[in-house]
Amino acid sequence: MKQLLLIGIGPGNPRQITVEAIDALNRAQVFFVLDKGAVKDELLQLRKNILEHYIRQPGFRVVQVDDPRRAEAASDYVGAVHDWHQQRAALYARLLETELAEGECGAFLLWGEPTLYDSTLRILDLVQARGVAFELEVIPGISSVQALAARHRIPLNRIGEPLTVLPGRRLPEQAQIDNLVVMLDGGCAFADLDDPALHIYWGAYLGSADEILISGPLQQVKALILEQRAQARARKGWIMDTYLLRRPL
Amino acid sequence: MKQLLLIGIGPGNPRQITVEAIDALNRAQVFFVLDKGAVKDELLQLRKNILEHYIRQPGFRVVQVDDPRRAEAASDYVGAVHDWHQQRAALYARLLETELAEGECGAFLLWGEPTLYDSTLRILDLVQARGVAFELEVIPGISSVQALAARHRIPLNRIGEPLTVLPGRRLPEQAQIDNLVVMLDGGCAFADLDDPALHIYWGAYLGSADEILISGPLQQVKALILEQRAQARARKGWIMDTYLLRRPL
Ligand SMILES: C[S@@+](CC[C@H](N)C(=O)[O-])C[C@H]1O[C@@H](n2cnc3c(N)ncnc32)[C@H](O)[C@@H]1O
Ligand SMILES: C[S@@+](CC[C@H](N)C(=O)[O-])C[C@H]1O[C@@H](n2cnc3c(N)ncnc32)[C@H](O)[C@@H]1O
Repeated sequence: MKQLLLIGIGPGNPRQITVEAIDALNRAQVFFVLDKGAVKDELLQLRKNILEHYIRQPGFRVVQVDDPRRAEAASDYVGAVHDWHQQRAALYARLLETELAEGECGAFLLWGEPTLYDSTLRILDLVQARGVAFELEVIPGISSVQALAARHRIPLNRIGEPLTVLPGRRLPEQAQIDNLVVMLDGGCAFADLDDPALHIYWGAYLGSADEILISGPLQQVKALILEQRAQARARKGWIMDTYLLRRPL
Repeated sequence: MKQLLLIGIGPGNPRQITVEAIDALNRAQVFFVLDKGAVKDELLQLRKNILEHYIRQPGFRVVQVDDPRRAEAASDYVGAVHDWHQQRAALYARLLETELAEGECGAFLLWGEPTLYDSTLRILDLVQARGVAFELEVIPGISSVQALAARHRIPLNRIGEPLTVLPGRRLPEQAQIDNLVVMLDGGCAFADLDDPALHIYWGAYLGSADEILISGPLQQVKALILEQRAQARARKGWIMDTYLLRRPL
């Protein structure tokens, strides 16, 4: 049987990786690394640093993959994502057949927590549906949501209250905001909220040397966040940011 | 200045701790450990094992604390929790003044992720409001939610959908269930749901040798979960369980 490990490597700080994940890195002979183009070079480099730092035995192989690009501005978002998953599934199926021998162990290094807004698990389901057999193990990792709360030193939820995590495109339809974490918000959906009671806790490049933290009443710090975000993005060529919205009691 | 570290130690598997958390353990001179009575002895022991296993220099102190008990079946839940937090704040304030010298570093070992359904951060806010000064650092840990998803090998959210996490007592009021994780559900609120479409992914003692996993259509596996849960609880004297509910597309 082929073995496949999905390893959570945390949100950017190479020390935010678990001992279990390090053990897993040391079990794999092959690492599949997706290349998402020039802007993501830095993230690719971080993955390579993790391999070099934590793997005790040399001799592992790295298989670099050209990621099929998703149609960016499709009108049918979910449909477009499904198509892209099928393309990726075809690609992964081929890789698992050609690059991983029976009895070998392969690994994907996944950003943050592997089961949170990451499609690898779903794509591997499609790969299995195509008849490719492997044993799968998932190793949790620290999510950017956790890094955000830790750096702002705030609880994610208040006593007895629910916590909701969602992608930016779902923010406009939220009727009530108690404890809401927003990810994947390239469009800065927070800027359109005008509720004067809301507080925001925002973080970019969490866990890395470029980390930026801003918090305060949303209406007061909104402009500052938009400005810092635009500047950082222009400087580095990419940005990853997330935030928590909360209405004080 | 006194330093205080809130260290997430994961949900039960001592290898699910990060390198950052191990570094933090090695910075602390004093560990504050809450004793929650006989049923929690096992969890206390796990914390002690973590200290023994990961601390490189001997000589740290452990300060064991009798936890003020919360009024269990108060009619005003949030009010009762607030009172209990004030009691704890008074206790922690005293401890930080008597047991931690200026320039020393103290630590709390917190179960799972320190910012998720854990009151320590809120209580320390109250301690600071009482005039006790310290610098605070929060070190994320793997949450039981992540252990649940990893062991069932399921994504926490589906494409573009929100994820909600809530305590069992808030389950009955949920109008729509997409991706819902329930924690702190001593009353087995899932057993009262009769929607035939729901799937459940349930886990108890995640990450430990006693781990139990059950999943399937809720109406089909409900009785099995109730039975296994009652048996395990009787055998061990305590249980910690969590689950994800999802309506298939
Ligand atoms: C495709 S999702 C992956 C999330 C990841 N699995 C996790 O657990 O953090 C990418 C989104 O995660 C958030 N994110 C990931 N890493 C981050 C970081 N270091 N700082 C801030 N946000 C981050 C951003 O909202 C980004 O749009
Ligand atoms: C007070 S909350 C603390 C949660 C913790 N901060 C975390 O991140 O997992 C306690 C609840 O967490 C869940 N839990 C914690 N550890 C668990 C484990 N090992 N297995 C299953 N559920 C667990 C249960 O729902 C329990 O009622």
